[in-house]
Amino acid sequence: MERLRIAIDAMGGDYAPREIVKGSLDFARRNPGVEVVLYGEETPLRRALASFKPSKHGNVSAVYCGPSVGMGESPVEALRSKTDASIPRAVEAVSNGEADAFFSAGNTGVCVAATTLKWRLLPGIRRPGIALPFPTLDGFVLTIDMGANVSSKPEHLLGYAVMGSVYAEKLLGVPNPRVALLNVGKEERKGTPLVLEARELLSASHLNFVGYIEGNHLLDGDADVVVCDGFVGNVLLKTAEGVTELILKQIKRAIKRSPITYLAGIATKPAFRKVKKQIHYSNFGGAQLLGVNGVCVIAHGRSDAKAVSNGLKITAEVVRKRVNDMIVAGMERISLSRSASQGG
Amino acid sequence: MERLRIAIDAMGGDYAPREIVKGSLDFARRNPGVEVVLYGEETPLRRALASFKPSKHGNVSAVYCGPSVGMGESPVEALRSKTDASIPRAVEAVSNGEADAFFSAGNTGVCVAATTLKWRLLPGIRRPGIALPFPTLDGFVLTIDMGANVSSKPEHLLGYAVMGSVYAEKLLGVPNPRVALLNVGKEERKGTPLVLEARELLSASHLNFVGYIEGNHLLDGDADVVVCDGFVGNVLLKTAEGVTELILKQIKRAIKRSPITYLAGIATKPAFRKVKKQIHYSNFGGAQLLGVNGVCVIAHGRSDAKAVSNGLKITAEVVRKRVNDMIVAGMERISLSRSASQGG
Repeated sequence: MERLRIAIDAMGGDYAPREIVKGSLDFARRNPGVEVVLYGEETPLRRALASFKPSKHGNVSAVYCGPSVGMGESPVEALRSKTDASIPRAVEAVSNGEADAFFSAGNTGVCVAATTLKWRLLPGIRRPGIALPFPTLDGFVLTIDMGANVSSKPEHLLGYAVMGSVYAEKLLGVPNPRVALLNVGKEERKGTPLVLEARELLSASHLNFVGYIEGNHLLDGDADVVVCDGFVGNVLLKTAEGVTELILKQIKRAIKRSPITYLAGIATKPAFRKVKKQIHYSNFGGAQLLGVNGVCVIAHGRSDAKAVSNGLKITAEVVRKRVNDMIVAGMERISLSRSASQGG
Repeated sequence: MERLRIAIDAMGGDYAPREIVKGSLDFARRNPGVEVVLYGEETPLRRALASFKPSKHGNVSAVYCGPSVGMGESPVEALRSKTDASIPRAVEAVSNGEADAFFSAGNTGVCVAATTLKWRLLPGIRRPGIALPFPTLDGFVLTIDMGANVSSKPEHLLGYAVMGSVYAEKLLGVPNPRVALLNVGKEERKGTPLVLEARELLSASHLNFVGYIEGNHLLDGDADVVVCDGFVGNVLLKTAEGVTELILKQIKRAIKRSPITYLAGIATKPAFRKVKKQIHYSNFGGAQLLGVNGVCVIAHGRSDAKAVSNGLKITAEVVRKRVNDMIVAGMERISLSRSASQGG
């Protein structure tokens, strides 16, 4: 069997290339069936590769690229002026059939723009969306879009629902996923025109649509997939991060205030570590950019080696489980039922 | 000196009228200078009043109203068919000069609609906004709008910035508050057309505008006032609630798993209680509906007596500190500088 190949942007992320390379090597050592190809500037990439234990499976290679895209660069500008950078080169490798998937912890906007331009979108999809599984008390809720498209239309949200549903079923193993729409209330007529129109589309679809969900119930486990506009999703994701950090800091500070709680706090540390691990982004490693005609997994900018290794595991799984083929089938079903209802 | 009078919707909220009445009586006992007038249906209101210790200051009275507005009712429908309900009656009392402020833990949409219709808006303000102080590690960040207006225009966000700035200065004691705009990134050109246009307006204003802020930095203390559209604000507020609950549940569960952490957990309980108290909504009690021509404080639907009592304290303070007069002055300054720049 031919090896599955992942083209990795070694230059993207706050700790690139070091942590990206470290995580990629770690992944390669554990997964002899996958070939990792690191794209990056020669000097820093060589240096990073030299400082970690290589994979004995011969499944790691490097492609040297031109100056990289920075985290704050505009997608249009970056793709025009830096055609030889790691992101466009790695994306190109997938178009050319040299790789099966693309992974980056770099500039999300540039990744979205490069894959959309070079790979185009899947049939029926109008906008790509970033899907991320959030931890709940006993499982996950997949939220989409986390910021690929900050000005959604109702049709885009319908596409997200189809894509999220496929992802939840294939990757998270949820049969017939319950799809909810994020809103400011539970009542049918509440919300923006965007939400009200998306509700109509979702109700008429084959999806297991369960209605609106509010932010405070997002993590209750009442829905498997939650759909929202990318601006809202991005705020939601980042606020959840900020709140988590604040609470853990506050608890730490409160515990340190008295000698009794301080001593007891030392004993409760393993419990805290467990919770931190459970809610920590690095355990998810990456969010798939759904809707583009190829596999692209985007990791958090703060990804460390562990997050990268987990992200690559997800990437390989997305390719193997043929998530994109299932999305195409789902969108066909939507368009068939629409033309049937229009024809009748 | 004449007593300050607050018209209270005794029927609104998940634990109404009991907790509303209990909190109001508690507040009245501690604040002889304020008169509380409870609006509600006769039977339940009488019963609730009879079951708690009265105020010896003679500063509590009741006004019996018709059938109340439910939490899920549409504002338009409710205000048309239930003109004798507690919300419209209490709002009316402020219009008639029978009260100085209105307080409710009931249907937010109905409160916004009733006050906007009966009191109208302050000069220069196009849409009211709900302002809520979020706890940070060492203070507060005032966020506006938390859901009064779910389809904002750039002009509305400018109004929120002026109102939030006044509120932060007068109520939270922050001199020259730093105002930020919630966005998906820090870079100048990032964001929706709404955010980009609001940025222009804010940059040109007299406010201490410090640029964009992302959700993960909302609670870092880098801004005193954060402005956003009501849909986003509502999601943000509720997600923060949901995340907080989830984390505390996870920690509890993790602590209970081993006998050592379980025992130590008992000792750390005071620290947890402290944190819970710090982040618990009932300590804020209420959010002012800013922009209407009158004082309206809206409390969380889940408000208990303590939250109500705290909310009434805020209500009295808003009246005394003449927040609305300062907002009018702020909006005049905006319109003067605009006509000057247009004239020049």
